[in-house]
Amino acid sequence: MMNDSLRRDAEAIVRQAIAAVSPVRAVEKALKGFKFPGPVYLAAAGKAAWKMADAAARTLGDKLTAGAIVTKYGHAEGAIPRVACYEGGHPVPDEGGMAGTRAILDLTRDLRGEDTVLFLLSGGGSALFEKPLIPLTELKDMTDQMLSAGCDITEINTVRKRLSAVKGGRFAAWCAPARVITVVLSDVPGDPVDMIASGPTVPDRSTCAEALEVIRRYGIRIGGRAEQCLRTETPKELPDAETLIIGSVRELCRAAADECRALGYEPLLLTDRLCCEAKDAGSFLAGIVRTHASDGRKTAFLAGGETVVHLSGTGLGGRNQEMALSAARGIAGIQNAAVICVGSDGTDGPTDAAGGYADGYTLSALKEKGLSYDAVLADHDAYHALEAVGGLIKTGPTGTNVNDIAVALIG
Amino acid sequence: MMNDSLRRDAEAIVRQAIAAVSPVRAVEKALKGFKFPGPVYLAAAGKAAWKMADAAARTLGDKLTAGAIVTKYGHAEGAIPRVACYEGGHPVPDEGGMAGTRAILDLTRDLRGEDTVLFLLSGGGSALFEKPLIPLTELKDMTDQMLSAGCDITEINTVRKRLSAVKGGRFAAWCAPARVITVVLSDVPGDPVDMIASGPTVPDRSTCAEALEVIRRYGIRIGGRAEQCLRTETPKELPDAETLIIGSVRELCRAAADECRALGYEPLLLTDRLCCEAKDAGSFLAGIVRTHASDGRKTAFLAGGETVVHLSGTGLGGRNQEMALSAARGIAGIQNAAVICVGSDGTDGPTDAAGGYADGYTLSALKEKGLSYDAVLADHDAYHALEAVGGLIKTGPTGTNVNDIAVALIG
Repeated sequence: MMNDSLRRDAEAIVRQAIAAVSPVRAVEKALKGFKFPGPVYLAAAGKAAWKMADAAARTLGDKLTAGAIVTKYGHAEGAIPRVACYEGGHPVPDEGGMAGTRAILDLTRDLRGEDTVLFLLSGGGSALFEKPLIPLTELKDMTDQMLSAGCDITEINTVRKRLSAVKGGRFAAWCAPARVITVVLSDVPGDPVDMIASGPTVPDRSTCAEALEVIRRYGIRIGGRAEQCLRTETPKELPDAETLIIGSVRELCRAAADECRALGYEPLLLTDRLCCEAKDAGSFLAGIVRTHASDGRKTAFLAGGETVVHLSGTGLGGRNQEMALSAARGIAGIQNAAVICVGSDGTDGPTDAAGGYADGYTLSALKEKGLSYDAVLADHDAYHALEAVGGLIKTGPTGTNVNDIAVALIG
Repeated sequence: MMNDSLRRDAEAIVRQAIAAVSPVRAVEKALKGFKFPGPVYLAAAGKAAWKMADAAARTLGDKLTAGAIVTKYGHAEGAIPRVACYEGGHPVPDEGGMAGTRAILDLTRDLRGEDTVLFLLSGGGSALFEKPLIPLTELKDMTDQMLSAGCDITEINTVRKRLSAVKGGRFAAWCAPARVITVVLSDVPGDPVDMIASGPTVPDRSTCAEALEVIRRYGIRIGGRAEQCLRTETPKELPDAETLIIGSVRELCRAAADECRALGYEPLLLTDRLCCEAKDAGSFLAGIVRTHASDGRKTAFLAGGETVVHLSGTGLGGRNQEMALSAARGIAGIQNAAVICVGSDGTDGPTDAAGGYADGYTLSALKEKGLSYDAVLADHDAYHALEAVGGLIKTGPTGTNVNDIAVALIG
């Protein structure tokens, strides 16, 4: 048994939200806001580079002068007119990615003030768009040392930006005096633009002094060339560079909120920075629902981000399925409540489901099927449990990857 | 370093909220709403029975005819005029509690329609207020069997109510035709009145058929007298009984919200049913704060309930301290954000603190003290970490116990 109308609404909300932040739709929408007086050069890096570049090329039409992109192996889906497509390694950078990066740098050499570089950046761009200033093996050794020493990601990036010819704003500096428009399809919660792919077109807020302090404090061994790099400052002002973030988890939440409104639910964004254990996020969300279920209003609580699962069982599932299943207990018996949790890429864990759905009837439906809620959760077997009660959400691959979204509906 | 004004506000909010739901203040306030035309008999059971009865006796003055109360060993603080005080075992019922229960039943024997029984119920009342219809050892054996068989708390209560002369509405039936006013100081989130001490004065929603089905399904072995009890129905209507819930966690949240408003924060109650892992509740709450910190409004997010900690380290702390410390990472660097988490009884874990406070400066303050956030959390050593950065909240015992409250402030 299930609340069919809540199920329908919940699924419509997440499907519409995911579609709204798809690379194609998001790039098309973003480019509408710009005018290009002169030649436009298209550069793209990341796992969604091909999809973004293809959409941009079709939108730009004859305005596109030339382009070069670098994406992950297997992610280029065909030829794009006037655009050279490269593939490279991810998450470990390799020669393929560096060849693509060189093509992009060649494309954007000696530009003029009337030129525009349209730079499309997506997840994986950090490994794929790279021109190291020291040998790759030395770079890897330094990174390993920093990880072992307990450096956090900010400290590592502060050092690594200075060992790259394109990161920390240096790609935008290279394109000067051309105008650089960066369109970022973000998969980093909270959208710190200088963190996404180490910000090739964003002024760098970190300093040489900070980088050298990291080396000193953690006792990292470095060579002479690397030390020279760490003493070379990154761009602090890039007046001709602008960045537009599309398809972030915040956009995903916004699109979901729009769809909630269209279906008559008053949306309330809780957070777009969810990062705790999936089970506990489900419990917290269910607690919110239970507290407000009898308020007498149609409400939707939204939470975007990415939870984690500490695996201990032998079951099948994913963080979204586990979060939905976990919420089932807290909302058990509430006829007008439902929780849906979905990964925007359409894949949740090693399963063919995008996520899970639970409502006030789910717990009793599990019981009827002879399944023990506690045993299922302990074994992290949310997939089979939700499958048994019709609670799996399947979308297939969406081509989008901007974290997950959870929607709790009170109908 | 610390945001002193947020710290001041946060502490004022939780202290005022806790004071507002203290047994004394809450009983005084509750009794203002009633008129007593005839004699008033005072009965009280639970850990707060003495404090509640003392406040009621002082409020009633000469209107009080006589009273009897039963509280936990060591919880009676002196004589109350015209009130007999008994002490008994908790959580395991014993002869002391049953003697107190007998005194209450004697007090309320043969009442008339103009009489009023004021029944003050608090946490622990289930063990302390009991007159079993079968021998205690047999009752314990049946309970053990049901627990081993995997019965849930509802199933256990459905059976146990029928094995008691006072539970499941039977105490109110005993007092008939007198009016029975029950004032409940609740420590059960969500306030299901028939669950608190198995509802001595509340019509019982469960049935004999359900009780017998539990016995059958789980194969519980029972004696002849017990079976006869299970076939005897509990009261389904108690027209002269009314119940008032005071000092519940919902009241605690409401009182906190009032204080937030008084200090200029717009309060938003997230939930009064928090029950997930403390660390993850802190992370979730911090995610909410980070998402809304730049909304440009003074806001307070409130969450009541009771988190859990799965202990694995050797450190010192409590669930509230751990939740606050956990939130510290998520709000790090946000100058206008703070999180405070406090147990309403003034005791958090085996420590002398009531809870913890963290703000945007806490993480860097820990670093300055040479403490590793991750190591401290892994060792569940929130007490010493918060102590080092001035983040402990100490109230001393408050005499109130209605779960915990967490307040996230955006200033």
